[in-house]
Amino acid sequence: MKAKICITLKAGLLDAQGKTIKQALESLGFQGVQGVRVGKYLEIELNHGSVGATRKDVERMCQKLLANPIVETYRIDLGS
Amino acid sequence: MKAKICITLKAGLLDAQGKTIKQALESLGFQGVQGVRVGKYLEIELNHGSVGATRKDVERMCQKLLANPIVETYRIDLGS
Repeated sequence: MKAKICITLKAGLLDAQGKTIKQALESLGFQGVQGVRVGKYLEIELNHGSVGATRKDVERMCQKLLANPIVETYRIDLGS
Repeated sequence: MKAKICITLKAGLLDAQGKTIKQALESLGFQGVQGVRVGKYLEIELNHGSVGATRKDVERMCQKLLANPIVETYRIDLGS
């Protein structure tokens, strides 16, 4: 089973990297960019059986290692 | 309109960061981790009207700035 995890800064926190990318896009001539937020993306291949157990495990991975729960939020999608 | 972009290393290329995270997860006691791939995640807020024009623009952003097309692939999801 594959878990896809998107980790982003919590809303309201300054995303300096995103701001820089927004400026770079504008200087390349792209119009209409309102905002850019940058985060991490992880794909984890697991050989667990049940969806429930996998989700619980991946949640724990995010809390313990992958994300910083003070400033980041994460979204987990499970698929094959 | 919001574009969500996942940028990952092409399949087959060594992902050293992913390998390190896999080892860290194992050392924390997580079982059954087969592999970890790490990438970038971006959310871009755009005020374009049509889905078609937005997708085309975001594709160009990926090719010109956000991704390295030699070693990376990207996936674009458009939503509100």
